[in-house]
Amino acid sequence: MQLELLRESVNIPRKIKTIMEEIGFLGMGIMGKAMAMNLLRNGFKVTVWNRTLSKCDELKEHGASVGESPAAVVKKCKYTIGMLSDPPAALSVVFDKGGILEEISSGKGYIDMSTVDAETSSKISEAVIAKGGSFLEAPVSGSKKPAEDGQLVILAAGEKGLYEKIVPAFDVLGKKSFFLGEVGNGAKMKLVVNMIMGSMMNAFSEGLVLADKSGLSPKTLLDVLDLGAIANPMFKMKGPSMIQNSYNPAFPLKHQQKDMRLALALGDENAVSMPVAAAANEAFKKARSTGLGDLDFSAVYEIFKVTQPSP
Amino acid sequence: MQLELLRESVNIPRKIKTIMEEIGFLGMGIMGKAMAMNLLRNGFKVTVWNRTLSKCDELKEHGASVGESPAAVVKKCKYTIGMLSDPPAALSVVFDKGGILEEISSGKGYIDMSTVDAETSSKISEAVIAKGGSFLEAPVSGSKKPAEDGQLVILAAGEKGLYEKIVPAFDVLGKKSFFLGEVGNGAKMKLVVNMIMGSMMNAFSEGLVLADKSGLSPKTLLDVLDLGAIANPMFKMKGPSMIQNSYNPAFPLKHQQKDMRLALALGDENAVSMPVAAAANEAFKKARSTGLGDLDFSAVYEIFKVTQPSP
Amino acid sequence: MQLELLRESVNIPRKIKTIMEEIGFLGMGIMGKAMAMNLLRNGFKVTVWNRTLSKCDELKEHGASVGESPAAVVKKCKYTIGMLSDPPAALSVVFDKGGILEEISSGKGYIDMSTVDAETSSKISEAVIAKGGSFLEAPVSGSKKPAEDGQLVILAAGEKGLYEKIVPAFDVLGKKSFFLGEVGNGAKMKLVVNMIMGSMMNAFSEGLVLADKSGLSPKTLLDVLDLGAIANPMFKMKGPSMIQNSYNPAFPLKHQQKDMRLALALGDENAVSMPVAAAANEAFKKARSTGLGDLDFSAVYEIFKVTQPSP
Amino acid sequence: MQLELLRESVNIPRKIKTIMEEIGFLGMGIMGKAMAMNLLRNGFKVTVWNRTLSKCDELKEHGASVGESPAAVVKKCKYTIGMLSDPPAALSVVFDKGGILEEISSGKGYIDMSTVDAETSSKISEAVIAKGGSFLEAPVSGSKKPAEDGQLVILAAGEKGLYEKIVPAFDVLGKKSFFLGEVGNGAKMKLVVNMIMGSMMNAFSEGLVLADKSGLSPKTLLDVLDLGAIANPMFKMKGPSMIQNSYNPAFPLKHQQKDMRLALALGDENAVSMPVAAAANEAFKKARSTGLGDLDFSAVYEIFKVTQPSP
Repeated sequence: MQLELLRESVNIPRKIKTIMEEIGFLGMGIMGKAMAMNLLRNGFKVTVWNRTLSKCDELKEHGASVGESPAAVVKKCKYTIGMLSDPPAALSVVFDKGGILEEISSGKGYIDMSTVDAETSSKISEAVIAKGGSFLEAPVSGSKKPAEDGQLVILAAGEKGLYEKIVPAFDVLGKKSFFLGEVGNGAKMKLVVNMIMGSMMNAFSEGLVLADKSGLSPKTLLDVLDLGAIANPMFKMKGPSMIQNSYNPAFPLKHQQKDMRLALALGDENAVSMPVAAAANEAFKKARSTGLGDLDFSAVYEIFKVTQPSP
Repeated sequence: MQLELLRESVNIPRKIKTIMEEIGFLGMGIMGKAMAMNLLRNGFKVTVWNRTLSKCDELKEHGASVGESPAAVVKKCKYTIGMLSDPPAALSVVFDKGGILEEISSGKGYIDMSTVDAETSSKISEAVIAKGGSFLEAPVSGSKKPAEDGQLVILAAGEKGLYEKIVPAFDVLGKKSFFLGEVGNGAKMKLVVNMIMGSMMNAFSEGLVLADKSGLSPKTLLDVLDLGAIANPMFKMKGPSMIQNSYNPAFPLKHQQKDMRLALALGDENAVSMPVAAAANEAFKKARSTGLGDLDFSAVYEIFKVTQPSP
Repeated sequence: MQLELLRESVNIPRKIKTIMEEIGFLGMGIMGKAMAMNLLRNGFKVTVWNRTLSKCDELKEHGASVGESPAAVVKKCKYTIGMLSDPPAALSVVFDKGGILEEISSGKGYIDMSTVDAETSSKISEAVIAKGGSFLEAPVSGSKKPAEDGQLVILAAGEKGLYEKIVPAFDVLGKKSFFLGEVGNGAKMKLVVNMIMGSMMNAFSEGLVLADKSGLSPKTLLDVLDLGAIANPMFKMKGPSMIQNSYNPAFPLKHQQKDMRLALALGDENAVSMPVAAAANEAFKKARSTGLGDLDFSAVYEIFKVTQPSP
Repeated sequence: MQLELLRESVNIPRKIKTIMEEIGFLGMGIMGKAMAMNLLRNGFKVTVWNRTLSKCDELKEHGASVGESPAAVVKKCKYTIGMLSDPPAALSVVFDKGGILEEISSGKGYIDMSTVDAETSSKISEAVIAKGGSFLEAPVSGSKKPAEDGQLVILAAGEKGLYEKIVPAFDVLGKKSFFLGEVGNGAKMKLVVNMIMGSMMNAFSEGLVLADKSGLSPKTLLDVLDLGAIANPMFKMKGPSMIQNSYNPAFPLKHQQKDMRLALALGDENAVSMPVAAAANEAFKKARSTGLGDLDFSAVYEIFKVTQPSP
């Protein structure tokens, strides 16, 4: 409901600029496939590649070309987007044999939309720029469904000129894109958002347990929260499953805790004291220590539960 | 925007039941006046009273009767609502000369919508019931604007029968009312919600400072947050003024801290450990210790700021 | 070892002033009996009383007189000491029939060495003073063994003149006494000390678990700690039993947590932010929530343990 | 006082084993010089080296030989001790031209007593072992005075055989040495101890502020603490200067905070939740954020102070 409204409110242009160049797309995982499909559906010409090439078949049926290697894709396309599963995969498409570096050059741009750490991002950025190419990191907020619906939030950072060129594609992939300055800022912005989210999940969990032990219905608390100033999609979405002790991992707790740790480390670098985030981080660590790391991050709820009658 | 949607979604009946009895209304402060006016506008007959009787004039012009004392109002009306400024005022209209107790009796009900502590509420409840009357505590979530718009959230607890009788009035005063069980539960529910809100405000403040010190724009952080899973009216409303260091007290920090303390005490009674709320409470105390207690609770943002270049 | 040294260092006079008046002593529990015996052994004349009078027999054999009621003791003695088990007992010897108030008067003094809350202490103080008597609260630090050895630490507050008169008795009962000003300050000082102790116990527990999970021997950690700048009797005494998961309740965890809560409340009154004590308090609450409240406060160690292999 | 006792209690042999080989000693800083001097005074033959060779003069006067390079020292001596100022210096004496690696070989041992991170220690260990040599890390607890008095606490880890050989030297340098297992454990033990110390310093600071704002004398609190179960050398030594706002940097706050961070990171690796240490760490970060990083770590006291009258 809210999300629908938000789409309208940011007023994303859906008509494609006809001048847009062919776009390369590396990585046909859940996210990458949905994103490439969106580009195709909106009139872009797309050349795709995936380590297991068969994963490109579906896209091919919908009109995509297929490249034999990252280098082949870059050779053919002025702009190439990567959406890889993790830092090693993100590094591999750049540095390995048949990788991006073999063909990237002045006038060509690489946009890495994978979620990677700052160091990985810097390494790729430096290598691409050393070859004369342009680079943009552009991690996204949102998972499978928003990717399919073109409703991602894109946190881009790096070369401003490349950002401006690729905006028509971002308009199709997301409901909003931001240009955040130098490489690394995209990753940092994600950390800040996830840190706030992690603290909120803890505050929410504490409230649910407090309600329950004080003789109030957690279900009613959800209803009350949903009508007030702190109503938000996360409470609405996670609350009902949490009170049923169901923690299907949309975002694994151990990853949330890792992001808290990295955000706290960023705060440490900048002498920012964050006692609430620190307390939340320790709660997530407590959850890990009891074996909840692979469940959804909302499973932190479990550690606040009271297991004995109050003295 | 969101609030409009919410109103529809809970589908509040706006047509008044013709059988509804005349309603007494004690307390013509900002909230009380707006609420009594709403009752009048929606076809209720209302008899009002205020310590300073002149404050009843405006309501009189709109068709209200005026009672000479709380007792006089209760004598005339089957149901009387109180909306007083604080616990002493709430006790005074009940126990003082000319107070409710002089006329409350079997078949009559008193609904206290003031925000008071559990002890005050219990005292009033016991006295009213001892006289044969019915009692409901019904604190609200929402301030002036929602009161005027009939958009309050009403947290009622006490006598179920009285709740059912007064629901038509609640339908006019609020977008939603809840019946929460025994007296005290209304106050507890408010504490739980405010505790979550207080922790969230701290998480939000930490995030804003971290963004700023990490080279990100706090303004952009607000935009990114507003598009994601933790978007909520409080961030949207408070964020822009916080980054301008403006803390006009909608909800004074010292009151927020008091609610955190009471919520933690409630947790203590029930052996609920709440480390994130405890950290947030200490941050609010730190803010009080630097003289920010009378500003808006969002002023807790100030204490997270870094005042020296990082070493 | 350390304690022996301390005794010498504060140089407590062991010779009794012959001019000292007969002393009344109310309460023959574990502490009271040991203290009264110490007074006898050091040449004081003592009249004792206990609710169950038979508990006075042992003292009688050692030369004590026995009073029939608190009032009878006060009638006979210029100075009367109380060492009662809890606030209700402390109030009872003062206010009940046959209580202190019936005989206290100008020129007589009552010294309450029980551990009670500030409110109880104030009530007794006001009543004694209203009758013309003098009052001193004088809670002690130390339990059975130090009571027997005359090694208590006495935290006195109230009437300075009475303190000066009773010092010869304090010199026998404790290794050191302090006069802390107005009534209430004795209790506050105890809270501050216990708060620091509670935080230290948490820090110690976290360190023991961290050592263990990092491949270090907790036993060796104890040895290393004992040689360094933070060596202290508590670590030395509690450490070995903690690593054997033995928590014989010298000071029950629920009482320690209550003191943390009261110390935090004292901080709240004075706008003192204490994030470390707050975190420690939540850890003790967590321990209570898992049923450890009646064990020794060192049982908080249990909640830091890791129950799953790290992911 | 306590320390004297401790020395006796661990019963350190002061007579030197005549069979002990000549010992090399690299690094004539404050610590290194005092330690080498101690070896000489106790009958060891010592060959010293320092980057600035003139710093070896004093030792030469007391009978030491001087080596021209780390390699020259290692060539001459079966066992060589390093006491360098920081990780780069510790790496330099091993890996640079004229460094230890040029001469270390089977039958020779290197003992690094510098305080370095685990990574540095591992690097040195691997290189020494690759050349056939033996390695021990042996960071110490204690600063200038204990170094001069042979009262250090030595936390050794690495090759057990080498530890046993070098124990006669450790007996002279410290009041106690521990063998902690594999390389890295010495550094970890130091982190655990320093983490507990940092949390204790925060608890102590909170208590001092609470006493002060509650109308108690911080000076008296020090006296009371010193008589009780949590009396320890750190409170005794730091307390008096803290209440005079004097923070001469014996151990800089920024280094203490770094150790807290590293200890928390160690906890993170092992899924150990440490909420009290985390709160203490954020307090130290707050202190850094207000420019206190270069003062003594006891300056964290400053951030707990209340700057406004309580509301």
